[in-house]
Amino acid sequence: MKASLTILTRRFYSSQEVARKWIYAKTFRGEPTHANFRLETEPIPALREGEFLAEAEYLSVDPYMRPYMLAYPEGSLMIGGQVARVIASSHPRFPIGATIFGQFGWRTHTVCNPDQVEKDKPYVLPDFGTLPTSLGLGLLGMPGNTAYFGLRELCQPKPGETVVVSGAAGAVGSAVGQLAKITGCRAVGVAGSDAKCEWLLKLGFDSAINYKHNNVYADLKKAAPGGIDCYFDNVGGEISEAVIKQMNVAGRIAVCGAISNYNTSVAKVTDPQRQFVFKQLRMEGFLVWRWNDRWMEGIEANLRLIREGKLRYEETITEGFDKMPDAFIDMLRGGNTGKAVVKV
Amino acid sequence: MKASLTILTRRFYSSQEVARKWIYAKTFRGEPTHANFRLETEPIPALREGEFLAEAEYLSVDPYMRPYMLAYPEGSLMIGGQVARVIASSHPRFPIGATIFGQFGWRTHTVCNPDQVEKDKPYVLPDFGTLPTSLGLGLLGMPGNTAYFGLRELCQPKPGETVVVSGAAGAVGSAVGQLAKITGCRAVGVAGSDAKCEWLLKLGFDSAINYKHNNVYADLKKAAPGGIDCYFDNVGGEISEAVIKQMNVAGRIAVCGAISNYNTSVAKVTDPQRQFVFKQLRMEGFLVWRWNDRWMEGIEANLRLIREGKLRYEETITEGFDKMPDAFIDMLRGGNTGKAVVKV
Repeated sequence: MKASLTILTRRFYSSQEVARKWIYAKTFRGEPTHANFRLETEPIPALREGEFLAEAEYLSVDPYMRPYMLAYPEGSLMIGGQVARVIASSHPRFPIGATIFGQFGWRTHTVCNPDQVEKDKPYVLPDFGTLPTSLGLGLLGMPGNTAYFGLRELCQPKPGETVVVSGAAGAVGSAVGQLAKITGCRAVGVAGSDAKCEWLLKLGFDSAINYKHNNVYADLKKAAPGGIDCYFDNVGGEISEAVIKQMNVAGRIAVCGAISNYNTSVAKVTDPQRQFVFKQLRMEGFLVWRWNDRWMEGIEANLRLIREGKLRYEETITEGFDKMPDAFIDMLRGGNTGKAVVKV
Repeated sequence: MKASLTILTRRFYSSQEVARKWIYAKTFRGEPTHANFRLETEPIPALREGEFLAEAEYLSVDPYMRPYMLAYPEGSLMIGGQVARVIASSHPRFPIGATIFGQFGWRTHTVCNPDQVEKDKPYVLPDFGTLPTSLGLGLLGMPGNTAYFGLRELCQPKPGETVVVSGAAGAVGSAVGQLAKITGCRAVGVAGSDAKCEWLLKLGFDSAINYKHNNVYADLKKAAPGGIDCYFDNVGGEISEAVIKQMNVAGRIAVCGAISNYNTSVAKVTDPQRQFVFKQLRMEGFLVWRWNDRWMEGIEANLRLIREGKLRYEETITEGFDKMPDAFIDMLRGGNTGKAVVKV
């Protein structure tokens, strides 16, 4: 095999070196503490055909880890991404010296055969030039892509619209607001300290609200006087309620995270906001007038189905124009089966 | 004008006849009562060029009227659709004898110039054959179209999927379940009486749950063992919570109504579920892995923006692999600005 010829060993690497790793020692309950983690070491095995050895340079800590780890048994390696440097290799696409991203977990050294990784394959970072490689975990990695795709594909902001982002001073939120500005939108951020809010204004946000000291609902009224068209939600909870009440017609909400309740008890994993994130649910409210231009299509399709005996109906008919309030009151109580109508 | 030649007068119609109409006498609070309504009469004016006179045959009572009327002052005509017969006409497309649908409100006689109606224009019903014209208010009208378009366009059910509908024995819900069956789906209905549930089973629903006597969550587990792919929601509230917890990944929810809280106090108009309906909001949860196939597009776009000076960042870097739990705990408390990373 040609690949085996590319095996090279970094000067300081030997199979006697050990990897350090953080173990999920105890299931999270409430806010994580040191008792949830345990540091361990393990020997680094010798490389086999097609493998490389990567040494972590930067490791990522992300909000998603808190809810995700609940799916893992105690004793598992903590999950997470890292920017690493290849220090030994028997894989042509991951040569020594390459700076890569890998979903290797909380560990210093990783032996990996990238061809055998099914999900979250490691990849060589594009040339960042003079920018720090740590950006491969942030703006030029998962959080940056979360902002880029979530805003573009789900919020679909148009120039002149107002975009609100919660968790605005985080890795994702700070990118969302700036991308919204680049699109020609008004950007409003909600964050948790005055220093964060000042930073958001420096980044070009039109407005920044410190939810810890202010009335978010009232401040949003001022910051978004024309209402809110897009909401990029990282936090859920009360902030989201205040935003949703001020959304404009046909507004779009991208639910990226629900960090406001990640530290709540295990029992609350079924919180609706989390359901939306982790199951990627889509919910859309509608008024049928939206399809006014296809109105007869619907009537004719249903008429055909009735004639074919495939669609049946029942009606609850109240007789007499003077009985209209009675029919209405009864219908709201669920007194009808099928359509409630009044025969004059 | 040619149209004026078509003026004809029904034998029994004269301008002395009076129209009866129901007035919204008092703003709804809680469940409507007779005190909210007042019956009045008014003379029917003589027809002018381009007008017709319609006599109501069937009038509709619909859940939406309860929240919609809150936008009208006391003394307004109650809003609503009706199936009516044209009994005098000076409009060629609405000849005498035509059966029409009109959004005329709760009134027996209506003079209308259809060319001057901006929204909700009246229309002549298609030929229903031997079917009752009242269907123009139900399955072959607004509720039928609500089921047809809402299910098709927003739930987008695929054969083999499971569709749950709340308010299943209503005009909309009973059509939704049947249309889901026609599409090859499993249809589960939630309704408020045993009689309604029996009817749903007769219509072909695979399962029907009486929410008044049963544990909806547990019954759904049985009725939809493979989870729920589509939810057509007419009611909101606790039933919706139980359904949403059992949705499958990438599930679709069409929020059509929130009747469970229509009778609550005026103050609750801002309830989130209603916001979704009346503002036609769209909310979608997401995981960025959805765009794995476009991953480098995102990184390269953001890299370009950074280089152009349009996209800025800050990082919160914790030094030392042994500090990973500290960095994680701090990040969950909001201690970071921008991306939180650990430098090994």
